[in-house]
Amino acid sequence: MEKEKLNKKAIGVFDSGIGGLTVVKEIKKILPQEKIIYFGDTARVPYGSKSKEVILRYSREIASFLQEKDVKMIVIACNTASAFALEELSKELNIPVIGVIKAGAKSASQISDSIGVIGTKGTINSMAYYNEIKKHNKSANIYQKACPLFVPLIEEGLSDDPVCYEMAKRYIGEIQPMIDTLVLACTHYPLINNTIKKVSEGKIKLINPAEESAKEIKETLEELNLTNLKREEEDEYYSSDSPEKFKELAELFLGYNLGEVIKINIDKLNACVQ
Amino acid sequence: MEKEKLNKKAIGVFDSGIGGLTVVKEIKKILPQEKIIYFGDTARVPYGSKSKEVILRYSREIASFLQEKDVKMIVIACNTASAFALEELSKELNIPVIGVIKAGAKSASQISDSIGVIGTKGTINSMAYYNEIKKHNKSANIYQKACPLFVPLIEEGLSDDPVCYEMAKRYIGEIQPMIDTLVLACTHYPLINNTIKKVSEGKIKLINPAEESAKEIKETLEELNLTNLKREEEDEYYSSDSPEKFKELAELFLGYNLGEVIKINIDKLNACVQ
Repeated sequence: MEKEKLNKKAIGVFDSGIGGLTVVKEIKKILPQEKIIYFGDTARVPYGSKSKEVILRYSREIASFLQEKDVKMIVIACNTASAFALEELSKELNIPVIGVIKAGAKSASQISDSIGVIGTKGTINSMAYYNEIKKHNKSANIYQKACPLFVPLIEEGLSDDPVCYEMAKRYIGEIQPMIDTLVLACTHYPLINNTIKKVSEGKIKLINPAEESAKEIKETLEELNLTNLKREEEDEYYSSDSPEKFKELAELFLGYNLGEVIKINIDKLNACVQ
Repeated sequence: MEKEKLNKKAIGVFDSGIGGLTVVKEIKKILPQEKIIYFGDTARVPYGSKSKEVILRYSREIASFLQEKDVKMIVIACNTASAFALEELSKELNIPVIGVIKAGAKSASQISDSIGVIGTKGTINSMAYYNEIKKHNKSANIYQKACPLFVPLIEEGLSDDPVCYEMAKRYIGEIQPMIDTLVLACTHYPLINNTIKKVSEGKIKLINPAEESAKEIKETLEELNLTNLKREEEDEYYSSDSPEKFKELAELFLGYNLGEVIKINIDKLNACVQ
């Protein structure tokens, strides 16, 4: 294939639902010329409380769908799916696969020895951030805390509500005395940045893995000479449940309206891997 | 088939996860001799925020699985799935199908003209309770309120927590001045009975559709001469995600430990309907 055509291919991004749009937002900031094809698995959301076996299967189905769309790279814009499926997908696919854990963990490990990690039960129990931080900083003390109520609170529009503040105080209060840096290890959490800052009285440095991952994506494209130099096509958005609901919540995450969202039946996803 | 053998068959019960166990609990109170085969779709939980199309598909898959287990009746022990799939499954299957909405709605309609209904977004937006209550009591005033945070709060063990009380005050406070009867239109809600009573200062009669549905199940079995007279086999529990997690949460709902829980791959479910 001609070099230029390869570069014009899209970056495939997927998540359990709409949380991964915080990653899209960061990618678009530093790679505005790239075309994004996004898949949100809203028919099976959330991933955070489900097992590795189930998440790995869902991730394979979606990766297969994105490959049919002929993407040049796959970004797993979901911490739980990154924790459970990055290793396998990287081995199985013939295009680069980037998760959201490595870059955030590396960044935290370079600036602190007392690091907190907050995320879903799946992400925390997987120990993915813990192990990744330890790889780069053996002497780091790492304090993890699962915060299962943050996602429903955020999706209910209660990010700045006293109830969200109360839960943040409980969750983060437990690890706060021991840490100076906190990794927001769930794509939803950048939306409660302000609440977390209030709870921690601005004393803790917050790491947003979406930001760090966008840098990793840019570097990888440059290394492989895959950067698109000129945007020619619009982004594409797909969801496994109602496009209307997807669009409604998407605005909360992106701050602007999406164009068309296309519904993909899970039937079709299953067919892809059978 | 011999009459006795038919009666010995199990009652198939399904739900998006573990919430349906509150229905199982009520069935076992008045039909202790019946064998239950339960399926919890924990790999795709929750149903409450998903679309009719998706829920109908999941319900068909699970009904097909239960029919392979040769059940004599299917109970949709999930309000969202009852709202979206009861009509279709009743037409499509050759065994009785009972949802959790009819009996609770009828009971409320008989005792009050000022009825509140709380449930998931799916159940509330479906208008299933509204329409069913109106069938029996045309002059009833019905006030509905979706309470999307109750399920995650209950599953996090915060049923008696001030945060749950605060959310109950907000959700129920909106409709409280207009009602004297409240239908708990989500199988999780009986677990926050006490919190709701506290919020409503004991002034509102609470209707638990699980209780009413158990009576409907008993009556239907009796009418069709399908009642089992003597228990011979143990209940069976299946889940689409980790049996360990299922068992852990199940205890919260049933108050006792389940025996073995068997995992069913969604692959197999899909295969049933293809």
